[in-house]
Amino acid sequence: MFLKNCTISVFGLGLIGGSLAWKLRRDGLVQDVAGWSRNPETVRRAMEAGMIGRGCVSAEECAALGDVLVLAVPIRSMEEVSLKIRSAARPDVRAVFDLASTKTDVGRKLAPIWGRCYAGFHPMAGKERGGLENADPDLFSEAVCAVVPFETTDPSVTALAEELAEALGGRALPTDAAVHDAAAGCVSHLPVLLAASLALLAGRELEKNPLVPLLAAGGFRDTTRVAGGPPWLGADMTVTNGEQVKRLAREYKAILDGLLGATPGELEALLEQASAVRERMFAGKKRWAGEKR
Amino acid sequence: MFLKNCTISVFGLGLIGGSLAWKLRRDGLVQDVAGWSRNPETVRRAMEAGMIGRGCVSAEECAALGDVLVLAVPIRSMEEVSLKIRSAARPDVRAVFDLASTKTDVGRKLAPIWGRCYAGFHPMAGKERGGLENADPDLFSEAVCAVVPFETTDPSVTALAEELAEALGGRALPTDAAVHDAAAGCVSHLPVLLAASLALLAGRELEKNPLVPLLAAGGFRDTTRVAGGPPWLGADMTVTNGEQVKRLAREYKAILDGLLGATPGELEALLEQASAVRERMFAGKKRWAGEKR
Repeated sequence: MFLKNCTISVFGLGLIGGSLAWKLRRDGLVQDVAGWSRNPETVRRAMEAGMIGRGCVSAEECAALGDVLVLAVPIRSMEEVSLKIRSAARPDVRAVFDLASTKTDVGRKLAPIWGRCYAGFHPMAGKERGGLENADPDLFSEAVCAVVPFETTDPSVTALAEELAEALGGRALPTDAAVHDAAAGCVSHLPVLLAASLALLAGRELEKNPLVPLLAAGGFRDTTRVAGGPPWLGADMTVTNGEQVKRLAREYKAILDGLLGATPGELEALLEQASAVRERMFAGKKRWAGEKR
Repeated sequence: MFLKNCTISVFGLGLIGGSLAWKLRRDGLVQDVAGWSRNPETVRRAMEAGMIGRGCVSAEECAALGDVLVLAVPIRSMEEVSLKIRSAARPDVRAVFDLASTKTDVGRKLAPIWGRCYAGFHPMAGKERGGLENADPDLFSEAVCAVVPFETTDPSVTALAEELAEALGGRALPTDAAVHDAAAGCVSHLPVLLAASLALLAGRELEKNPLVPLLAAGGFRDTTRVAGGPPWLGADMTVTNGEQVKRLAREYKAILDGLLGATPGELEALLEQASAVRERMFAGKKRWAGEKR
């Protein structure tokens, strides 16, 4: 059974769930899209905007409709929602994907509940502001979508996840949970805490120095941008990927201390190196994307 | 004597010096613009592009032409260039401005050389890439331009600096060196080190985890953007504003530790607060800009 013959049930209609539903429905990539949100008003708005074809009053109703269940609820609600809908899900459910931005902790909780039909799926895309009102069917265009099978996962489910990545306009990247969490910790989760720390520092400084907001320009805005995201999401990522985030933060602080203690010449060399790493990162991703095409 | 009757001599034709020269000349805001760079090829290109009206072979030649001298060389060269051109400058030189992004250290060195005609001037604008090839006459549009008189500065020189800010399309912000450096340290200098530390961390991680570049998306790019700037500039800012940068880094690390040690609920509250500070920063700047208009 291919994706285009499936009804997709989306749980959680925020930025990510809403964008995914909308894209699949708008482009006719699936049979139908059912959607549920804890907030009935959100379901109503998603129906009205045509992002979903079926608005569900309960999570159970939504589960009963889907060939494929997509969990786009906050990370810390994944287990609760899974337990709630497990018995309502169809016996022939094809696949269950969680869209969480951390995988090890979520997988440990969800794999025993869902068994072989379950795999992790993480589209690396976002916006400064979350919520259905910011949903965008093209959000996943060219986005890397990590596909994370667990020990229990059936290969057909992994294959369907890869098909979903392509359907969304993204690029499937099969990996395992630990590798995913270490990498995402570095490029996505820790940065939220770094950005927030800088914003909080500025908040303290501006109490005593009225120039702080006036001198802030593009550099401050960009360096703190990810601190503008939903606080529950930042907390979710940090809490469910705590081990990696703490390890990375320790190394980060040691690197920062190294910069602060360096001679001018050493510092310049280290900043040169930092700039080169950025180029290498972007070139590496571009090369991989080119090979995928 | 108003700006429009002055010949402006610009020392250093990188992103900032080049953009300033170009803007003043293109819009006919001054009598003439003379320019000098350590690299004769840069002078040639600036002439060719019409950014300057007079290309100078030596710094002394450039100094002799100017009613107003604008020092746009790297921070750590400000003193050397000043000493070199002091005796070539005209006895009736109206003003000397340094465009350095740190002020206390530079002022301590330059005020004794130039006396009453000298003030600090810092346009808060930049780009990811420096150099004359990235110069843009509209770079300073709506940019805050810190005007920093020293104890020795004549009020007419401060007034001319304010006129220059308006001529560039920016907004003059009179302040003193210590307040400037504390604020710029927070919103501009420390962020360079924070961004570089994250890039260097990613550089280490990608040696052992090939997913690091592949999962990197907009969040990593933005959080590290200022690490893509010229390494000499980052080193200059850190070295000449070392006391503030070190103080701020200490507080920053304590805030980060606080986030890492927080309970999920506390963390969410702190992230909420961080997001609110950002809003407050931008709103504060917008309000000030509105009042200036």
